[in-house]
Amino acid sequence: MSADIPLGTYLFKRLNQVGIEHIFGVPGDFNLKLLDHVYNVEGLKWVGTCNELNGAYAADGYARESGVPGVIVTTYAVGELSALNGISGANAENVPVIHIVGQSPRFAQDEHVLLHHSPAPHGLRPNDHSDYEKASEPLCCTTEKLWDPKKAPEQIDNLIYKVMQLKEPGTLFVPADMVSLPVSTANLSKKIAPAMPFHPSTDEVAQAILDAFAKAKRPVVLNDLFATRFNMKERTMQILERTGAYGYCTFLGRSSIEETHPQFGGVYNGQVSLKGVSKAIEEDSDFILNIGAHVSDFNSGGMSRTIDDSKLIIVHAFYARVFGKNYDNVFFGHVLDRVLQQLPVKVPAHVDTSKPKVDFPNPELKGKITQLTLPHVISKFLTPGDTLIAETGTFQYGSRCCSLPKDALYFAQYYYSSIGFALPLLSVPPWARLSHPIRTSVSTLLRVTDLP
Amino acid sequence: MSADIPLGTYLFKRLNQVGIEHIFGVPGDFNLKLLDHVYNVEGLKWVGTCNELNGAYAADGYARESGVPGVIVTTYAVGELSALNGISGANAENVPVIHIVGQSPRFAQDEHVLLHHSPAPHGLRPNDHSDYEKASEPLCCTTEKLWDPKKAPEQIDNLIYKVMQLKEPGTLFVPADMVSLPVSTANLSKKIAPAMPFHPSTDEVAQAILDAFAKAKRPVVLNDLFATRFNMKERTMQILERTGAYGYCTFLGRSSIEETHPQFGGVYNGQVSLKGVSKAIEEDSDFILNIGAHVSDFNSGGMSRTIDDSKLIIVHAFYARVFGKNYDNVFFGHVLDRVLQQLPVKVPAHVDTSKPKVDFPNPELKGKITQLTLPHVISKFLTPGDTLIAETGTFQYGSRCCSLPKDALYFAQYYYSSIGFALPLLSVPPWARLSHPIRTSVSTLLRVTDLP
Repeated sequence: MSADIPLGTYLFKRLNQVGIEHIFGVPGDFNLKLLDHVYNVEGLKWVGTCNELNGAYAADGYARESGVPGVIVTTYAVGELSALNGISGANAENVPVIHIVGQSPRFAQDEHVLLHHSPAPHGLRPNDHSDYEKASEPLCCTTEKLWDPKKAPEQIDNLIYKVMQLKEPGTLFVPADMVSLPVSTANLSKKIAPAMPFHPSTDEVAQAILDAFAKAKRPVVLNDLFATRFNMKERTMQILERTGAYGYCTFLGRSSIEETHPQFGGVYNGQVSLKGVSKAIEEDSDFILNIGAHVSDFNSGGMSRTIDDSKLIIVHAFYARVFGKNYDNVFFGHVLDRVLQQLPVKVPAHVDTSKPKVDFPNPELKGKITQLTLPHVISKFLTPGDTLIAETGTFQYGSRCCSLPKDALYFAQYYYSSIGFALPLLSVPPWARLSHPIRTSVSTLLRVTDLP
Repeated sequence: MSADIPLGTYLFKRLNQVGIEHIFGVPGDFNLKLLDHVYNVEGLKWVGTCNELNGAYAADGYARESGVPGVIVTTYAVGELSALNGISGANAENVPVIHIVGQSPRFAQDEHVLLHHSPAPHGLRPNDHSDYEKASEPLCCTTEKLWDPKKAPEQIDNLIYKVMQLKEPGTLFVPADMVSLPVSTANLSKKIAPAMPFHPSTDEVAQAILDAFAKAKRPVVLNDLFATRFNMKERTMQILERTGAYGYCTFLGRSSIEETHPQFGGVYNGQVSLKGVSKAIEEDSDFILNIGAHVSDFNSGGMSRTIDDSKLIIVHAFYARVFGKNYDNVFFGHVLDRVLQQLPVKVPAHVDTSKPKVDFPNPELKGKITQLTLPHVISKFLTPGDTLIAETGTFQYGSRCCSLPKDALYFAQYYYSSIGFALPLLSVPPWARLSHPIRTSVSTLLRVTDLP
């Protein structure tokens, strides 16, 4: 039988075990004791943020940057509700964020005490401390409320598993009096290794892709949000090299394709793409493998994406669509692994590998910086392994002219589009990828305002 | 038959009719057209706030200051969710706030379009634009979603009525495409005049109060949150004058009693009151009329209020409690009106009207300002009709030593206690009570930081 440890320590040990090294948040009356346990776990650091909304944004950015869940700790009511817009953004863009809420103690909840932060009673009817939980529920994939120390380890593990598996936020409610209670360490030796279930239609989808590549003369790979989030980059690059396809990405698909590779074709945004990009994809290609599609307005040139189902296979984290036929619950990681097992190493001779012509602007960079020249100016500052984050606004669209160096990350909220998202993230990258092998600097270059 | 006007204009006309002169909020894609209609209503002004949380706080402060609902307009998702903590605070402390959310247009909701700000689809399952509404529902007394222009005027009127009646927030969801649709003006001639239903037990409660005052030698009136919110001040002062009772208030009951009146006894906070106050109430009194009780931790000296049921009558907006016996749904406005109809004008001869001894500190105000001297220093700046707002923190408690001048307002979030509440309110009072007859200045004196 293994020794017990305090629940708070168990929680942070588990988070650290899956690769989390930083905990964001704001202290408050009902999470103070919980936060003490951050310091019981070697390798875990506390990053206080100036308010909870910024903390939620930072946790979101940490997850995008590191690939492991971002964690934010808030206090009951005033903290948790202030974070909700950030959690909702993570939910909309499938970012794994764990929101830990330090709640009022169990006795106060049971006895409906009018503790500060708690809801109003309604005349003679007592208040209900769990009212606030209902506000989080529609904004995340799972919630767990710890109440029984015997069940808590399993609940914590399940929440971490689900958040990592689905790349969606989860909320963990921890009553303040639970934090120091002893819980079993038995689970600590079991690794949390989330995986998507293997679907029997996987081979059918993979075969359709293999057949299409075998015939196609102008194949194209188009990466989108879910390719980024589920890290399909290595698989994507192997497919490009073996098929001769040119690779494109949407705004939300950036970072899922190596833009320094000679087969990178550019950023696709429907009819608002750079001249040549939409032609290469929509008109000139005879097969499109669309990895992780997310056809939302800002990410598809205002819904101007025009790709015929007859030449389109979509693979995705949660489904596939083969020439118009849907396959529910087929995971693209499994599909692409099957494809790569059978895909010939050599590009077929009939493939036209000539570079599609794209009008990539090349403005003179003298004089004042303008909206037109800015992306090119920014590009000059970028070094391998850098992270570029754009605020919701005009620059997001100009950023298609930013040339990303090797292994760079680029992200912005093209779908949820919460203005204010970028600034709190500026403090995240140096922490989240300090040990990145290719990173040469950790300086931060800030640009927030719009230019004429 | 009356002519139609655009729905947006109807909404703002109705708000203006109940006395609202300022609309707070932040523009966003889905409320821009709605905001244009603010300018169609003479006497209505737009007050942009730097973010939605501050906007919600400002609307809350506007309501506390003016007595009419505070209004905040936000945009779909990113705006509405950022405001939730402020709405929740209004809900916890019974402040009438109307949260108007400009939503995605109806066709986009019907067709589950992946419009920016909207929720994620789940694989092949479409998104649901109404997910975010579920986050607001537990945090307000009522929500209305406008969808049919024929029903919209009634829905708007009902929401305003309920918010004003219960002094709780309500949320109005307005799809962006609804704003310009013509609606009937028929209701505009009907006044929205919220009232609480008259309960048949009203007379029984009133009689118990009359009997108790007739016998009591040391009667006390103790005002609390609901006395402030439902404006029981005039009734309270009449009762003090006719009964000879001394009047006290909790922190949340301030502004519901005239503190310059010779029968004002001080601020009661359980065992943490100034020396003499709790003795006068808990020990020396033989009858306590508690108007609008709200026994929450910070408002009762950490639940140290000790008042025996045998000498206590509570009247409240939503119930009464007479020597331990509860009466549901009895409204204190009706009760106190009945009491005043029958209460003798002259103080009974047997009442001991000698002033209870309270140790009110009188520190020397030389040298550095300290936590001890600050309330006294602040008091010197206050002029009649002023509004004093304390941030959640230490000064809240020191403020019991602030002497409020005639007709002053004082408030702070003693129950919900969201740190950050006070600052955004500093811009509110000059607007909300510009025309106040007794106000002599509209300057703002700011104090946010804590002192040693």
